[in-house]
Amino acid sequence: MAKQFDVVVIGAGPGGYIAAIRAAQLGLTVACIDAWSTADGKPAPGGTCTNVGCIPSKALLQSSEHYEQANHHFAEHGIEIKGIELKLDTLVGRKNTVVKQNNDGILYLFKKNKVTFFHGTGSFVAHVDGGWSIKVSGSSEEDLVARHVIVATGSSPRALPGLPFDETQVLSNDGALRIPAVPKKLGVIGAGVIGLELGSVWRRLGAEVTILEAMPDFLAVADQQVAKEAQKAFAKQGLAIHTGVKIGEVKSTAKSVTVPYTDAAGAEQKLVVDKLIVSIGRVPHVEGLGVDTVGLKLDERGFIAVDDDCKTNLPNVWAVGDVVRGPMLAHKAEEEGVAVAERIAGQHGHVNFGTIPSVIYTSPEIAWVGKNEQQLKTEGRDYKAGSFPFMANGRARALGDTTGFVKILADAKTDEVLGVHIIGPQASELISEAVTIMEFRGAAEDIARICHAHPTLSEAMKEAALAVDKRTLNF
Amino acid sequence: MAKQFDVVVIGAGPGGYIAAIRAAQLGLTVACIDAWSTADGKPAPGGTCTNVGCIPSKALLQSSEHYEQANHHFAEHGIEIKGIELKLDTLVGRKNTVVKQNNDGILYLFKKNKVTFFHGTGSFVAHVDGGWSIKVSGSSEEDLVARHVIVATGSSPRALPGLPFDETQVLSNDGALRIPAVPKKLGVIGAGVIGLELGSVWRRLGAEVTILEAMPDFLAVADQQVAKEAQKAFAKQGLAIHTGVKIGEVKSTAKSVTVPYTDAAGAEQKLVVDKLIVSIGRVPHVEGLGVDTVGLKLDERGFIAVDDDCKTNLPNVWAVGDVVRGPMLAHKAEEEGVAVAERIAGQHGHVNFGTIPSVIYTSPEIAWVGKNEQQLKTEGRDYKAGSFPFMANGRARALGDTTGFVKILADAKTDEVLGVHIIGPQASELISEAVTIMEFRGAAEDIARICHAHPTLSEAMKEAALAVDKRTLNF
Repeated sequence: MAKQFDVVVIGAGPGGYIAAIRAAQLGLTVACIDAWSTADGKPAPGGTCTNVGCIPSKALLQSSEHYEQANHHFAEHGIEIKGIELKLDTLVGRKNTVVKQNNDGILYLFKKNKVTFFHGTGSFVAHVDGGWSIKVSGSSEEDLVARHVIVATGSSPRALPGLPFDETQVLSNDGALRIPAVPKKLGVIGAGVIGLELGSVWRRLGAEVTILEAMPDFLAVADQQVAKEAQKAFAKQGLAIHTGVKIGEVKSTAKSVTVPYTDAAGAEQKLVVDKLIVSIGRVPHVEGLGVDTVGLKLDERGFIAVDDDCKTNLPNVWAVGDVVRGPMLAHKAEEEGVAVAERIAGQHGHVNFGTIPSVIYTSPEIAWVGKNEQQLKTEGRDYKAGSFPFMANGRARALGDTTGFVKILADAKTDEVLGVHIIGPQASELISEAVTIMEFRGAAEDIARICHAHPTLSEAMKEAALAVDKRTLNF
Repeated sequence: MAKQFDVVVIGAGPGGYIAAIRAAQLGLTVACIDAWSTADGKPAPGGTCTNVGCIPSKALLQSSEHYEQANHHFAEHGIEIKGIELKLDTLVGRKNTVVKQNNDGILYLFKKNKVTFFHGTGSFVAHVDGGWSIKVSGSSEEDLVARHVIVATGSSPRALPGLPFDETQVLSNDGALRIPAVPKKLGVIGAGVIGLELGSVWRRLGAEVTILEAMPDFLAVADQQVAKEAQKAFAKQGLAIHTGVKIGEVKSTAKSVTVPYTDAAGAEQKLVVDKLIVSIGRVPHVEGLGVDTVGLKLDERGFIAVDDDCKTNLPNVWAVGDVVRGPMLAHKAEEEGVAVAERIAGQHGHVNFGTIPSVIYTSPEIAWVGKNEQQLKTEGRDYKAGSFPFMANGRARALGDTTGFVKILADAKTDEVLGVHIIGPQASELISEAVTIMEFRGAAEDIARICHAHPTLSEAMKEAALAVDKRTLNF
């Protein structure tokens, strides 16, 4: 007989596993189905984020940053390295260990919270008495009936037309995290978050990295002043970035990959590399879900169509995370997961889409929340801008890491903070204060009046707020 | 003829230089007097903080942390170092460069803001027509008349009775920043912020460090759970810390320093070291100020007596920073400096003493704001506590730095955040979100509901807030 649950969550990425735990905390009986496997076939919950995204990339970024510091910056500190050798196996092995800690952590959390886990693919079978019939296929084979279903199946990397990922020569974010030897030449198509982060990793480890981007503007998604500063910093590091290119027909052999392209000036170019990362976006993952079987509606771009509350067109079927509209960010998925679980339990979960931070973990790091300057201009909104460079920040000088700035945009009349844009050391951590201020609908003056510990990078936030009122103290 | 100013600030440390700049911004004519000099006699504004405190210690902490990572942690990352040599001159030279950048920065800010700078010691002469007569002696010799005086003369290290600092064998924070060769054995008396930070620097650089502390509890000023975690971490690093000791008569020779002491168990002990740092607190610095000449009132501990608004007993004489009551922190001094400048200009500057963060820049870093658990217990306040270990934080795992936790204390009934205590990576930066929440008198639930970027250390703050309501998602 089919096992009955109040909630069945399909997918154990950040949206799914968090929704499952929250639902269980609220007294519901919950199952979570996930198909990710370790190399030896064991469950590997955590989705793209844990297995081939946020977590492993940050592990590689940290290791490669150490290597970069040792090779290029230790001498300034009086630390002379006589010889340095990179053991890539150990470096990648450490990354795998970090991933496994996270996989195991989620399995532990499921046990602790009494979430029943099924290792396999979950598919809709039919609308039945008592809810939805869901079939699990894979390591576990089960028939479940769910009063509510939360679809959290995530996204997959988008391939170039006619150039499938082989993960040996043509790499998605997955293969790019486990190249067996540092390539001499590495190509990256797509200068988005993934391209920049993984391009940075391999450049630091010794590859000559070229990034090709179709958009005319670099990092069009970021505030353009931030994007300019980033482009300058990356160029200085030796990342070659070409924007406004048109990619031709890529040829991949066992030894190399050839990328013909037209550059921004219209000239024909050819990039020949040892390996190619293709990071041109991600597509919602609904394969095997049984969308057609039950008539689950997708939008014109293939995402599961949901309203602001993550409700689909089917009764008691919800969807969260990358598989629905909105930014493909783990923490956005988590917030949706929590909110949906709470709604199912009769609470009033809410996600404020205006205060979801974005982060790029390059060096310098880039982070922002709210509107950027070009968006405010388009909206015709009157705003004031204030910024403060890390060059004038004592902690940044002590760290030896003074690239970048904090920029705050505030309403011209009310002084309410409308957006905060950071490029520089620890931007990923500094942004939390900005999100907090925006959640309270605070003013730039509030930040300016709040005591910030000295010497910290966070003082740059205070000074940027003072700059909004043209009264910086340290610049 | 004496030069007339609306405001004369005595001292160009964080309290003084900031007060001078803010007053100038508000349209007042301002002079700032400071006696600190570089080795070649040039002005070195910035006070203890810039010259021999916050800034140089952070430079050394960063350099020594790189050295520590290279020696002990690179292997985990697959980075094999064949040989490593420490050039202490370069390391200390870099620190000096960072200090000079800050000195020069302040001189630039004075020019930019039209603050007249005098290099020398400022002393009260008399109450005269138009305000206070102030004499500058030193590189500059001037007679000034000030409508308002802001005293920001800071503090000096406290010596052990009978054991003056020679800065060669017996070191204050000053000498401890420029030991010419890494000592084999280094003693530290006083396990406060300075002792722990500088003890950490020299331990990382190779010294065998022993810290003796008179108080029975380690870090009594911090939340005791944080203190325990810190003590464990420092012990693991090889910092020997003995609390509850009674120091006997210290003998210093050109070759060594002998510290006899009675340990917590009452046994007689003897510590023989190459150098000794004495960091047993700081005393307000009023030497040469002319306190008695004008009858400026001091309190029973020698601080300039001020009210909540930093007013002294004399008309239009104010005092800020280390020379008055309250924590000896650069950012507390800055807030007071801004508030006093604004009061002089007829505005209503305010310092919230309840939301001034404290930071210790060891590894792990320690930071807190508001009340700790022992204070709440003493007050008999009903509170809830929630904490979250960095061990369960994805970013911390990726960094390879999982010591410590975030702990949030909230009112049992209203859920208002009463205190936040962090020990762990980037605690110094993470605390700014906590200060922000407390300034808005936010609740733990507010933090729990705010989207935090993934993967960041700041997620530990969100989870600690969830823990207050016993609903952590990732632990």
